[in-house]
Formats: sequence, C-alpha cells, structure tokens
Amino acid sequence: MLTTMMDRPLLISSLLWRAENVFADRVGVSCDATRGDREFTYRDLGATARRFAGSFENLGIGFGTRVATLAWNTFEHLVAYYAVPACGAVLHTVNHRMSPEHIAYTMDKAEDEVVLIDADLLSVLFEILPRLPRIRHVVVIGDLEQAECSVSAEVTWWSFDGLLLDAVPIEEFPEFDETTASSICFTSGTTGLPKGVVYSHRSTVLHAMAISASGGVAIDGRHSYLLATQMSHVHSWGVPYAGVLQGARLVLPGPHPSPAELLRIITDQTPDVFVGAPAVAALMRAQFDADPERYDLGSVQTMWLGGQVLPPVLVRWWAERGVATVNGWGMTETSPMGTFSNSADCQGRPLPLFQVRVVDEEGRKLPWNGFTTGELEVRSPWVTGTYLDDDRAAEAFDAGWLRSGDVAVIHPDGRLEIRDRVKDLIKSGGEWISSVEVENQLLLHPAVVEAAVIAVPHETWQERPVAWVRTTAEVSDDQLRAHLAVTLPKFWHPDTFVRVDEVPKTSVGKLDKVRIRRMWAQKSAV
Amino acid sequence: MLTTMMDRPLLISSLLWRAENVFADRVGVSCDATRGDREFTYRDLGATARRFAGSFENLGIGFGTRVATLAWNTFEHLVAYYAVPACGAVLHTVNHRMSPEHIAYTMDKAEDEVVLIDADLLSVLFEILPRLPRIRHVVVIGDLEQAECSVSAEVTWWSFDGLLLDAVPIEEFPEFDETTASSICFTSGTTGLPKGVVYSHRSTVLHAMAISASGGVAIDGRHSYLLATQMSHVHSWGVPYAGVLQGARLVLPGPHPSPAELLRIITDQTPDVFVGAPAVAALMRAQFDADPERYDLGSVQTMWLGGQVLPPVLVRWWAERGVATVNGWGMTETSPMGTFSNSADCQGRPLPLFQVRVVDEEGRKLPWNGFTTGELEVRSPWVTGTYLDDDRAAEAFDAGWLRSGDVAVIHPDGRLEIRDRVKDLIKSGGEWISSVEVENQLLLHPAVVEAAVIAVPHETWQERPVAWVRTTAEVSDDQLRAHLAVTLPKFWHPDTFVRVDEVPKTSVGKLDKVRIRRMWAQKSAV
Repeated sequence: MLTTMMDRPLLISSLLWRAENVFADRVGVSCDATRGDREFTYRDLGATARRFAGSFENLGIGFGTRVATLAWNTFEHLVAYYAVPACGAVLHTVNHRMSPEHIAYTMDKAEDEVVLIDADLLSVLFEILPRLPRIRHVVVIGDLEQAECSVSAEVTWWSFDGLLLDAVPIEEFPEFDETTASSICFTSGTTGLPKGVVYSHRSTVLHAMAISASGGVAIDGRHSYLLATQMSHVHSWGVPYAGVLQGARLVLPGPHPSPAELLRIITDQTPDVFVGAPAVAALMRAQFDADPERYDLGSVQTMWLGGQVLPPVLVRWWAERGVATVNGWGMTETSPMGTFSNSADCQGRPLPLFQVRVVDEEGRKLPWNGFTTGELEVRSPWVTGTYLDDDRAAEAFDAGWLRSGDVAVIHPDGRLEIRDRVKDLIKSGGEWISSVEVENQLLLHPAVVEAAVIAVPHETWQERPVAWVRTTAEVSDDQLRAHLAVTLPKFWHPDTFVRVDEVPKTSVGKLDKVRIRRMWAQKSAV
Repeated sequence: MLTTMMDRPLLISSLLWRAENVFADRVGVSCDATRGDREFTYRDLGATARRFAGSFENLGIGFGTRVATLAWNTFEHLVAYYAVPACGAVLHTVNHRMSPEHIAYTMDKAEDEVVLIDADLLSVLFEILPRLPRIRHVVVIGDLEQAECSVSAEVTWWSFDGLLLDAVPIEEFPEFDETTASSICFTSGTTGLPKGVVYSHRSTVLHAMAISASGGVAIDGRHSYLLATQMSHVHSWGVPYAGVLQGARLVLPGPHPSPAELLRIITDQTPDVFVGAPAVAALMRAQFDADPERYDLGSVQTMWLGGQVLPPVLVRWWAERGVATVNGWGMTETSPMGTFSNSADCQGRPLPLFQVRVVDEEGRKLPWNGFTTGELEVRSPWVTGTYLDDDRAAEAFDAGWLRSGDVAVIHPDGRLEIRDRVKDLIKSGGEWISSVEVENQLLLHPAVVEAAVIAVPHETWQERPVAWVRTTAEVSDDQLRAHLAVTLPKFWHPDTFVRVDEVPKTSVGKLDKVRIRRMWAQKSAV
C-alpha cells in the first residue's frame, strides 16, 4: 500500500526557513574583543545567506562543489553553514588548530575548490596553498589587503563583504535528494591521519531535531547559548543548526576565544547556557579565580561540557557558583550527539532514534545492569557508516553498528556511563585499571590542575600506569599516592609522576595520549 | 559527493525501541471505570507488542495487510499501534462514532482484512460485516462469548488474550523502506464521504519528533498525559507515538470516557496534561460545576484543547482553577499537528519542518502582518499530498501545498491565527462575518452553553447569520443581541436564534455545520 504523504526532503534550507520566517526578529551576537560585539537577527541571517549564495556563480560553486571554511565562530561562518549546503554544495569546516600537514591532508582529501577564510588565519592557508592545486577561489572575511602578497595566477581572491555587495540574492533555494552530502568534518586524528565523515542534509536535519527534543539536549528558543565549541569541529555539536531551527539566541565568541574573553562575553552578553570543552571550563575557572571581581557569571545556569568524562572537581567548582553541569556522549562520527544527561554523573540516555549497546570482545551483547563493562556500539541515521575514502573503515564497524572505542556500562534505566577509551585502559597483572578514574582522583587534589594517565609496558605486570601532572604548588609523589589511596586500590597508583608545565592536548582540547605515550617512549629511550 | 552516513530507515519500531530499553520501568495506565485502572510498563508494552506480532501468521497478517481497529483508548489499542506497523502491516484506526455507512465505506476503501475490536463495540461490526467480504479474522479484546452468535464460515474469531497466550514473541522487528504505509485515518466526513489519508513510517516518526521538540507541543517524559482524544482519530494527535518515544506517562481513559469518568480519572490518576476537544472540556466544566466536591482537579497544569478555535469563556473557567489552556492547529491531513501555541490566544507557531503560508483567492502569497486574511496552505513531510483513491484530491492542493480550507492571518512573529473555516464565513452585504467570533461572543453570555452560527441565503444581503444556541436559563433574543452589541457590529448579529437541547456535533466532537445547514433548510422548507 502506498502512503499518501507529501515527498518533502529533509533539507538544511528548511531549518533556515523557520528562523527567517517564524523567528525573523530574534537576535544573535557575533562577538569580537577588538571590533566590538555585533547583533544580528535571523532575518539578517537569511538575507545574507541568500546574498552569499547569489555570488556562488562567480566562485564556481555548483552542486557538489567542496567549500572549505577556515574560520572562527562568527556570523559569517554561520552564513556559510546555511548558504553552502542550501545550494547543494558541500561545506568542509577545517579545524585550523590541526597541524599544517593534517590541514593540507584533509583539504586534499575533501577535494576543496573554494576557501572561506578569516583574514587572521591566512598564514595557515599560505603555508599549505602550494600543496592544494584544486583551490580556485579564496574568499576573505575581514581585511583583504593582507592577502595581496600571495596573489597567484591560479587563485582568485575575493572579499566576503565585496561579494555580498555585488550579489543578487537567491529567492528560493533548490530542492534535491535529502541524502545529498551537506558537509564534511574530519576526526581530530589522535591515532593517525584524520578520518573524513560526510554528513548529509538528512542526517543534519534529524540530528537538529533530536537535540531539540525535550528531556535531552532540548535546544530551545528561550535559551541563549554561548558557543565556545569550535564551529570548525563537528558543527559546534549541532547547535548552529538546532539553535537556528528553534529560534535560540546564539552568542558566537569570535576570533581567539581565550578563557578571559569567554568570561568577558559571559559578563557582557549574559548567556544562560555555556557550550564547550571541560578543558576550557577549567581554564576559565583558573582565570576567574585569579581576578574574581572582573567577571559576572550570574547569567549562566548551565555548563554543557562535552568531549571527555567530566572531572568531578570542575563540576563542583561550577556548582558552588550555582551553575549546573550537564554532559553527553558523542563523536565526530555521530554528528556528534548520541546521549545526553541533565547531570554530570554519567553520559545520560540515548536521544530519540539513537540506539546503543555494549558488547564483549567477541561481539556478544552485554546486559544493561550498571556494572558489566564492554565496548559501546551505536547506530542511528546520523551515525557514519564508513569513512571518506579510507581503508581504516573496515575495522570500525560491527554488522551495521559503529564501534565507538569507548568502554562503558549501561544502567538498567538506560543511562550510559563511559569508563574509558578502549585504548586507554591499563591491563596490569590481569586486572583493568581505568585511566579516567585515576585522573579524576588526582584532580581532586588541590594542587593538581591537569592530569593524564597512560599505560606503559612492564615486564612483570604487562602494563603499569604512569601519570603526567601539572601542579600549582609543591607536592611530593608520596603525598599524591596518599591522596589516591583514599579511594583507589594500591595497584592502581601510577608508578611514576611526570611533572609538566602543560599536559599535551589535541586540536579540539582533549588529552593527547598518543603524544604523551610517544613522549614517554622517547624519554625512556634516552 | 556521497554521504558516509548509515542508511537507517525511520521506522515506528525505533520509537518502541527507546521506550522498551531506555524507559523500560516507566508506567502508563489503562483506565476502566468498571474493571478498575491497570498500570503497565513500557517493558510490558514492548513484550506484548512482540507477542501480538508473533500471532500474525495465524491471522494472515503479512507485509501490507490492512488491520482495522474498532477500539477505545486502551493498552491493547496501544499494543496494536506498535505491533501492526512494526511488522509492515497497515493499521486502520476506525472511528466507531461515525455512521455505520461511513464505517463500512472506510473499511471497504482501506481493504481491511483483519479487525481488532473491543467486545462492547461488536454491535457496530455485526451491522456492517455482511458488506465487508474481505474480512477474514476478527480479534476480540474482552469477552469472546458475546461474539459467538455471529460465527460465520468466512470469518475466524479470536480472543486477543488467547492469541497472546499461544504466540511466540518476535525478537527483531523487520526493517524496510521508511515510506512504507504505516496507518490509515479518514477525515471525519463533514462535507461528504470520509477521505482516506495514508501515513508512512517516515511521516509518523517525523511527526513524533516534531511534537517532541522543545518550545512547541514538547511531549516530555516528565509529564503525565490524559488522552481524551480518541485513538481512533488521527492517532490521538500523535501522543501515543511521541509519548512512548519520550517515556511519558500515558493515561488512557478506556471505554466510554464520559465527562464524569474523565473527571474521576483526573482525581484518581493525577495527570498534569489533559489532551482533548474543547467540547469535552466544556462538558467536564458543566459536570464539575454540578458536583464540585466530588472531583480534585489539582494535578492538572495544562489543558491542551484542539480541533476548533477556543471559546474564551472556557479558557477563562479553567484559568480560574489555575489551569493554562494551550492549543494548536492541525487536520487529519497533517498527522495532525502543524502549529502550537503555549497560550490560548492564537494557534501558535509552525513546528519544525512544517511550513505555512496564507494566500488570496488567486493563490497569491499574502504578507504576515497580523491582519491580512487568506486561506492557510501548508506543506511538510507529515502532510498528505493526496487522498486514498479519491477524485476529490485534485482540488485540495495548490502546487505542492495543501489547501487547508481555513481562513487565517499570520502575525509578524510567526504566530498563526485561525479566523474561520472558508466554508463557514458569512458574506453579508459585501462584508465578511466570522461565524467563530459570533459564537465566542455568544458563549460569553452566562446562560449560553453551546452556540453554532451558520450562513443562510438572503435576497438582499446575499447571506445572513443564524445562530443555534443551547441555553441553561431563560434568555430572550433581545437580551442576546444586547450582549453581542458589546463587541460586535450590529450587522454581525444573527437574524434568528434557534433554541436547541444540543447543538449537532460530528463524530470527533466538532460543531456539525453541514448537518445544521441541512436542518435549517428542512425547517425553512416546512
């Protein structure tokens, strides 16, 4: 029997339709410490996206053309989030914090032909442009003169503002199949070259709907979100899509969002939800404690912190200021939101249409009893089913489920609790040690600011934990061991404590254990 | 460029997956005034749906088989909502309040082969069974003995409980294309024979997601919904799907939900959201006023009333009891929810992925200025694009948009305000009179309980309004006119007030203006 329903595709332009029409007068803010914060309405967003799209013929952008962005969280970047996919082109948000090698690798792999770039990131592009022969057009947001030095015959340089001035706005965005590619993100590449994930209009719209559902992330027009997550990494967790759909106030922190600048924006723009990485929130805490009179955190009700298991000490610090911490679970491969918790004690329940399971090493399903650990596997319309032209895809999937690489338990009430990365677990004398639990206990010591625990090979015990710690005061190894002994068995205590000025972190602010392991290996070899 | 996303279909079984796994211990209630209210968990719902599906081979139910339900709002009906579509069969929820002719017409049109029926509705089926030669199996919920009298060679009679007892549960529901038909509803047929709308898995899942989105209907696991809307009509506004997806507490009022029984259920089961028609809420008001000591409305926070523009007098009565009234706009053709308002003063904003416009008689788009009226047109993945095998489909659409037949304005902030049905507007002396506004003003008179205003032909003025009123106290025509004069121009006042014991209503509780017009025509002819 045939359905009588309309065949309406799920397109990113339909998210913008709602904002432009239903929430036309609602306001967002594009912040800039030097030029000043600028307000914009959703009417502006729609009009500018239509105008930018009107310039695509000049830029050679057609259906399927890859358009890279090297940009901060700004109004212009948000315009590209809509204009590029709405026309059937593909947005590649390049994480400019990666190494030049990785940036060049991803832009080559994505086959980018056009680059939209913030003027102050041009040096990143200059370094790799010779290796990217496909690039034909570069559109500069900000001061075009800085780019003059590198004009070449192959590349045409444009000013974003100039393009807009001359463009005829697109009235109706085209309609096409919802499985059309809309954007590309690459994993942060902690374990080798970055892997490409190609989102579709369908997956992006469904993800926006899922994080708008009440009871979970619940992106809502009544909230004001400070987006400290990079728009260059996994769509800033999808908030630029769901927030526009829902008519929320988006506060975009602009170039170089330092902890001090984020605190300044909270003080001036009074968002009620902060969205960002725990590492950033920890640095904001240190900055605030150094100069508490300068900032007003009063507007913030919620810290939505993601990307790693939350250090309890951080959660407590914000709680003492009346701010609740919430978190969830996700990966670049999962658009990224998969689960969400309204508290900090676990990673929460699967969002609608997102399925989870834990399996043992033979791939057998484990019970949801709150204590049997296994590898988390997931599937959903917004989970990737492969990687962009990459041999490593084969090992990442298990009969239609994505293997997450995370060790987890699921509680009988459906709450997910991540215990560690599979690769970060430490196997000592036949028993498992969770690197995350040792780190969290270390962070509870008042002198410890950062901590990373890795496994190192050991003749007798197979592996033993070693801790890298950044401390703010004198503290001996014995004192740290005494502190750990309060909650952890003795065999969990690290054999060695390496003192560092800063613990290495990845381009998206996570502990970079691959680099730490390499550094340890070099150190041991010496 | 190809997306790398998994190709996961949007299936109704994935709504149930979340409830069974993530909300397994959450509880709903299937009420019954005589047998007592029964609690069930979502674990029960999943297990029973899998068991019922395990009996489908016996019933000849395969992919695409049409399964009719003639049932009240009960646990068993909810089981059918999941089991039937999850196996790829098609659920036809028959509105047993229609006339036998219409019921037979819809069951023939839908090509129903199996009937799931509440024992106390068997008389409805007996009357029409001879006209439905396709029916092979009848499954009776409740007492099978009542059915013995009509055993025929063509039809096999089953007991629902007996079937479950013998069935082997289905472990994994099959996966198939999301555009597969999931269910059929017919319009209530106020203007001729009912028209069939065939929903798909895709449209049903997307509708469930849209009414779960925060800021709108926002179906939420923290709420308890008393579902006074019939599950036999437009999926009880989608709450049985979204409520299960979101882990909400569903309170199903069971057989013969009289106003008194609904008040009893509120008192005993303490739901916080009431979902139903304004007509029912008005009768509950009268019942409560007659015996206020008997009921406790204290749990109710929200009356979600839909299906017609809300009479302000009703909204005020509930507000005086601390209960907020919310409402929206929708049709059988729109699954049904299209817009939603958190207050009673308009029909609210379009839900995500639901697009609206108002057009003039030539089909030109009208501005959203809050005063220019036109016909409302809508489109969305959960709006029908045609009718089931019906010649009347041709006139219902306008270049991909469904013509709603409603006269509306849209405010600059995206709020929809319905003024009247196109067919109910009264054209008098070249000016328009809104029947709804006259009705609402009449209802503000303390003695008026029900009111319906229709247009009748007039030699001089083309049309004039006539009112049908049900009053509880003596009130003269002149007194009614004096009351109307407070807010309405004199030419809007009805020429005649017809006094009735009850204003005719349709099978879904709306004013039946077609019948009223016919009665007036007969009356005038005498």
